[in-house]
Amino acid sequence: MDNKILATYDGFILDLDGTVYLGNELIPGALETIEYLKANNKKVLYLTNKPLETREQYANKLTKLGIPTKPDEILTSSVVMAHYLNRQSSGPLVYVIGEQPLIDELQLAGIKTIQQPELIEFAVDYVVVAFDRTFDYKKLNNGFQAIKKGARFVATNGDRTCPVPGGEIPDCAAMIGALEGATGKKVEIIVGKPHRLTIEAALSLLKVEKERAIIIGDRIETDILMGKNAGIASALVLTGITKKDDFSKKGITYRPTYILDSIKQILTAG
Amino acid sequence: MDNKILATYDGFILDLDGTVYLGNELIPGALETIEYLKANNKKVLYLTNKPLETREQYANKLTKLGIPTKPDEILTSSVVMAHYLNRQSSGPLVYVIGEQPLIDELQLAGIKTIQQPELIEFAVDYVVVAFDRTFDYKKLNNGFQAIKKGARFVATNGDRTCPVPGGEIPDCAAMIGALEGATGKKVEIIVGKPHRLTIEAALSLLKVEKERAIIIGDRIETDILMGKNAGIASALVLTGITKKDDFSKKGITYRPTYILDSIKQILTAG
Repeated sequence: MDNKILATYDGFILDLDGTVYLGNELIPGALETIEYLKANNKKVLYLTNKPLETREQYANKLTKLGIPTKPDEILTSSVVMAHYLNRQSSGPLVYVIGEQPLIDELQLAGIKTIQQPELIEFAVDYVVVAFDRTFDYKKLNNGFQAIKKGARFVATNGDRTCPVPGGEIPDCAAMIGALEGATGKKVEIIVGKPHRLTIEAALSLLKVEKERAIIIGDRIETDILMGKNAGIASALVLTGITKKDDFSKKGITYRPTYILDSIKQILTAG
Repeated sequence: MDNKILATYDGFILDLDGTVYLGNELIPGALETIEYLKANNKKVLYLTNKPLETREQYANKLTKLGIPTKPDEILTSSVVMAHYLNRQSSGPLVYVIGEQPLIDELQLAGIKTIQQPELIEFAVDYVVVAFDRTFDYKKLNNGFQAIKKGARFVATNGDRTCPVPGGEIPDCAAMIGALEGATGKKVEIIVGKPHRLTIEAALSLLKVEKERAIIIGDRIETDILMGKNAGIASALVLTGITKKDDFSKKGITYRPTYILDSIKQILTAG
């Protein structure tokens, strides 16, 4: 191993969309890179802000794409939210503005969710706001009434949009904005990347010291910022949403430890 | 007329909900007050930020409640929006995030609306965002795509919530917040109260000089603020959302010209 990245790090925290795959296709070289990492006793964790699928669904997707993966190798913002809620209070009651996989993931972690509107405003401790393609006025009003009655207002991820084939669609920032507009309150916490709760959860799953971990991702404001905030090495890959000159364009002053053309360069970065 | 308000003003701009009626019942004294104003050659205009009904529907409501009213005695944020759009460009194409009466009112003013999703992103000049109890992800995404392609982002009213029997429900600020969250852009203009476009439209309909006009309403941050901004007299009535001590509670430094227990006090304020 005369390669600097491979010599320095034991734990590889890999973003999924834009880093390992794009939509339903692996990024060229991702498979070989991950196989090489595993063959050389590196620890790998996949990390996504998307609460649209469960860990099991993400593991199945990777497995089908040729990378055999177990659910506990995946960390999503849904899982970080479940950790967060369980640490806040015992048996919190939650109203979810989100899709079914998020509800499933919370319930799997022992959190009770109430989705019947007639009960929401009486009992709810937390309104969990997430990327929700089934968002509507009824959910907005349910969340609003619960927060008005004293429920905490928390969110899975702060992404403005989500890339889809041919473009992008509104992500969790839209649902957060709607609730903030109606309540006049700022969301209290967004647990997903770049929040420290996510990196803490990732390190705890990887069981490596932070000096031996590296985050590899395609988004400056989530993957790279989280690395910076946590004092953990990061590598920006240019296979996703970020182009090389985006730092100067957006006036961003922090930098990743490495900039790689793609995940494949892990094997060759010297 | 030894009454100061009656002696000073010729044009009375009356807010509706909380000032003239509450839900479906007239505020006690409203009928006699308005009859007195009209019998004494005062001009009356009803002004509401709500885009949920057309002028005709509001006129019918007042008529049924015993105050015979014609549509051109009503000014809504929908009508102000129609004026605004027609002044901006000739024949603008508009995508509406709002309910049918707003679409009807815009079309009545000659504005072409496009509501078919497959056409929206190609042709739309303006995305008009309004209080919409039928808001959903599809509308959010349609508006987002249109703004991304260059459509202007404008809104009817900035109210956070709308009072309903037994409480309040999310108003236009929620829809604005959702679009702002997804696009990362601030709404360019909110034409309803307290914007000067609304008071200009009101004065032009009333045909009175601003020194001879007074705004009477129950909301500090719309009715009273608009009066302050425009240099027009205002009277706060305490029959709606505002209580007497709300100014100090909310740290608001401006004051209405008059504070009245109810609209009825117009006849007795000395």
